[in-house]
Amino acid sequence: MKKIIVLLLLLQVSISFSQTSDEQMLKAIYKSALTESHCYTWLDDLSNKIGQRLSGSVGAEKAVQYTKQQMELLGLDKVYLQEVMVPKWTRGEKELAYLQIGKQKKTFPICALGMSVGTPKNGILANVIEVKSLDELKELGEARIKGKIIFFNRPMNPEFIETFHAYGSCVDQRSSGAREAGKLGAVGVIVRSMNLRMDDLPHTGMTNYGDTPKESRIPAAAISTNGANALSKLLKENTSYKFYFKQSCQAFDDVLSYNVVGEITGTEHPEKIMVVGGHLDSWDLGDGSQDDGAGCVQSMAVLEMFKKLSYKPKNTIRVVLFMNEENGVKGGNKYGEVATKNNENHIFALESDSGGFSPRGFSIESDDKNYDKIASWKNLFEPYLIHVFDKGHSGTDIGPIKSDKIVKVGLQPDSQRYFDYHHAANDKFDAVNKRELELGAATMASIMYLFDQNGLQ
Amino acid sequence: MKKIIVLLLLLQVSISFSQTSDEQMLKAIYKSALTESHCYTWLDDLSNKIGQRLSGSVGAEKAVQYTKQQMELLGLDKVYLQEVMVPKWTRGEKELAYLQIGKQKKTFPICALGMSVGTPKNGILANVIEVKSLDELKELGEARIKGKIIFFNRPMNPEFIETFHAYGSCVDQRSSGAREAGKLGAVGVIVRSMNLRMDDLPHTGMTNYGDTPKESRIPAAAISTNGANALSKLLKENTSYKFYFKQSCQAFDDVLSYNVVGEITGTEHPEKIMVVGGHLDSWDLGDGSQDDGAGCVQSMAVLEMFKKLSYKPKNTIRVVLFMNEENGVKGGNKYGEVATKNNENHIFALESDSGGFSPRGFSIESDDKNYDKIASWKNLFEPYLIHVFDKGHSGTDIGPIKSDKIVKVGLQPDSQRYFDYHHAANDKFDAVNKRELELGAATMASIMYLFDQNGLQ
Repeated sequence: MKKIIVLLLLLQVSISFSQTSDEQMLKAIYKSALTESHCYTWLDDLSNKIGQRLSGSVGAEKAVQYTKQQMELLGLDKVYLQEVMVPKWTRGEKELAYLQIGKQKKTFPICALGMSVGTPKNGILANVIEVKSLDELKELGEARIKGKIIFFNRPMNPEFIETFHAYGSCVDQRSSGAREAGKLGAVGVIVRSMNLRMDDLPHTGMTNYGDTPKESRIPAAAISTNGANALSKLLKENTSYKFYFKQSCQAFDDVLSYNVVGEITGTEHPEKIMVVGGHLDSWDLGDGSQDDGAGCVQSMAVLEMFKKLSYKPKNTIRVVLFMNEENGVKGGNKYGEVATKNNENHIFALESDSGGFSPRGFSIESDDKNYDKIASWKNLFEPYLIHVFDKGHSGTDIGPIKSDKIVKVGLQPDSQRYFDYHHAANDKFDAVNKRELELGAATMASIMYLFDQNGLQ
Repeated sequence: MKKIIVLLLLLQVSISFSQTSDEQMLKAIYKSALTESHCYTWLDDLSNKIGQRLSGSVGAEKAVQYTKQQMELLGLDKVYLQEVMVPKWTRGEKELAYLQIGKQKKTFPICALGMSVGTPKNGILANVIEVKSLDELKELGEARIKGKIIFFNRPMNPEFIETFHAYGSCVDQRSSGAREAGKLGAVGVIVRSMNLRMDDLPHTGMTNYGDTPKESRIPAAAISTNGANALSKLLKENTSYKFYFKQSCQAFDDVLSYNVVGEITGTEHPEKIMVVGGHLDSWDLGDGSQDDGAGCVQSMAVLEMFKKLSYKPKNTIRVVLFMNEENGVKGGNKYGEVATKNNENHIFALESDSGGFSPRGFSIESDDKNYDKIASWKNLFEPYLIHVFDKGHSGTDIGPIKSDKIVKVGLQPDSQRYFDYHHAANDKFDAVNKRELELGAATMASIMYLFDQNGLQ
């Protein structure tokens, strides 16, 4: 009995010791992030010196070189580029749109949806039908749709607390609207921007034609939320008004680009890999500071902090800046393929692609045992106001990694402002708060550290 | 035994029923806030139609009339003004500051601290001594300080997770710097802005001369964080550079103003009062959207939601928009005095004065029983990402309410961005996100509802 008590006491001492050293490490991580991290400076460079980084653009290429150089300065064990062929799509001239009201032209702020085809050179002029959903479109049927411009105008539902849920239940209009309307003979689509705020900024984002043959694809554009409301109102006054829009976007052959990879080799299990990443490409209207410059620089900051704190991870910690999340996920797919081909053993992957806002917690994809283990660290995160440990989607780029029993985690920042900027011209450096960005980086480093030390694998 | 089991079962059913109806009410409150609240429109009016609302200003008077009118439109049981005499202080002409470097003048962005005296008409030119604390000032002593301008340059410490802690451990320079430096013969003080961000905006805020006679008061100004760093660097190069500043601010006799009060009379205990409020006055550089227009419109929104949801509170729910929190707390003190004089029974008071950012929880001042009761509602708040139930300071304006056993609560929003705007020219409408503001209002309405229904008093 005495022995058992002594053993229990020893166990307790050992648990408290480990808890205390974890507490101390998290404290050191958050301090490092808030006082010496370069993540905000890197974002400044990515946003203000390089700018938009759409796959295949000069900006994307510069961003590859810049982040590779910065990683080399961190003294990592390896820094390299992973080749990947990516789509190249360009917006062309500024888009133009108006409603013809008698002799007057009421203009609207629009932008081509990503991967959309252009209009004929002189644009498209046609009657407009407003619908709220793909179902409503299908109910109207080919006879009503043929020759028309379809205006998808279902707003994001403000009742959701997490704005990503509102996005998820609305974005089918943008991703599938052109494909479905085209099948019914429409000549173009205009989609209400995925934005919970009322403003004048159109938000781009990918539209997906699926297997629609090239010659049957119809052009698709986003209209600002204010524009959508104004257009809807005018169409209610007179359904025979014609809408005009012109865009000169076009797709080219795929071009060579890269995922940027850097790593600290594990001291105990160099063959076990823990990935942390974001995507380096961005849409072209702003400079992609929130989406996803923030996630890239936070991921780099995780390794920077480990180096600064002289932390020697047991497992290999690998940062991956994925190319082409926005319009193809070619970088994520390539990374997954190569990992499978090389028989790499990925035990953990963390993605930050929900903006650089105040971190609230994690969205976790794993088996129950791993989930419970991670959830058991809640009290360690409490001083840093990290409280969300949800089961759910982790990230698009880490999706294709196929290792057995891998734990995948998405950083979950406060989501309220994300869609104010998402894919729009105001996704710029000043939309990111330095401390919020740094706290996100610290939260990422903390879960990487805890899994490296205490993870089940 | 059977009877006990039946009783226990009944008790459980009754608890679940009440939990369910509370859940439903919170759902309805959050929905109402996100879909039909006027709080954002009110803030737009306060910020963009009225503007700055420093006590005794035309803006403050307009804000009193505007909020009274808006409350009258809500169909409350009572709406009235409570008279209070408040200080009147004006900034005068734009302040001017430079460092004389040979024949060159290197200018700096400064602003007079609130309640500061002006400089002589032609300004002050003197040698500067930089200090990091009041202790350092005292150690230097009168011989070194006499005739000098004292430059308080201790930065806010970025290591704190909650920025209010960084503010609290730094603001003595602003509030007491001029008083203490004046005692030692200094001719003026320049204080580094209470701002965690590096930028060019000076942040005002009250400086407190205590019982220093009027003729012995020395002028005090804030300098932007970038300005403070640049000044510090130049002074290290050459300690003999002289600093010049000029400000024409002045204080006038107190003037009549008002707290704005509205209430819904309680159905069961009309004599028991639950207060919710913010402060209507603001500093003069921006328009006080975050500090504290947000808190005012959120407080009004609580009563608006109760009316819209046809909720009939058991206790009297009273909104109070306090005048003069920034430079005197005359409104808060007056409200407390009148409550005591009239023997009013206040059981609860909630203040929102930490900005209109995403709500995280509450800071609670109460006895342990009440604290435990409120903390027992945590699970009800979880769907709304409300997770902080701290014991601590509630609010400045509700401080003077003296009822026995009153529970006082401060809304605790995310604090990361607050000091980017606090008391500065960029505290404007566009610094407030509509959803964040609304979620704060819903969180306030929810705790008011829960206490009204389930509070211990």
